[in-house]
Amino acid sequence: FETATGGAGPAVRIAEVAGRQDVIPIKDAVYDGDLVIADITRHSTKDRTVEQIIDELRQVAEEVNGDIVQKGDDQLIITPTGIKVSREKL
Amino acid sequence: FETATGGAGPAVRIAEVAGRQDVIPIKDAVYDGDLVIADITRHSTKDRTVEQIIDELRQVAEEVNGDIVQKGDDQLIITPTGIKVSREKL
Repeated sequence: FETATGGAGPAVRIAEVAGRQDVIPIKDAVYDGDLVIADITRHSTKDRTVEQIIDELRQVAEEVNGDIVQKGDDQLIITPTGIKVSREKL
Repeated sequence: FETATGGAGPAVRIAEVAGRQDVIPIKDAVYDGDLVIADITRHSTKDRTVEQIIDELRQVAEEVNGDIVQKGDDQLIITPTGIKVSREKL
């Protein structure tokens, strides 16, 4: 049974977020069904901007029924449709 | 069409690795089809131990046809069957 994406499962993408312009490729990846681990470069990103970025990405996660978690101060995990992040550590 | 796990997709699990004993729950999660993001607590884990841990987890990733990537100094991403980590940043 081949899934729509030709059998390839979701991929994990790694991104760096230094400003609003870095959000678009992350959104595209999540819409494409990929999982994104985004490192926020704090020194160059104002807190206010980080909040806006998180809000924008939360909307995408909700829209595709994925998930979004902030891990520590400077990392975001955004997942595509059907993949959730367990809030319980191993 | 319900997948074997009752329709729930893979979950992302977060783990902390301070020693060899922390590897077993990570292995179990990957065998269960989950993706694990593991933070290595460097100050309490000798480099030699970290290498052994990475080797052990690499074997699991290869066995299940998943993937394993070291991200920076202190993070490992281990993926289950069919999920790969893109080596190209977004």
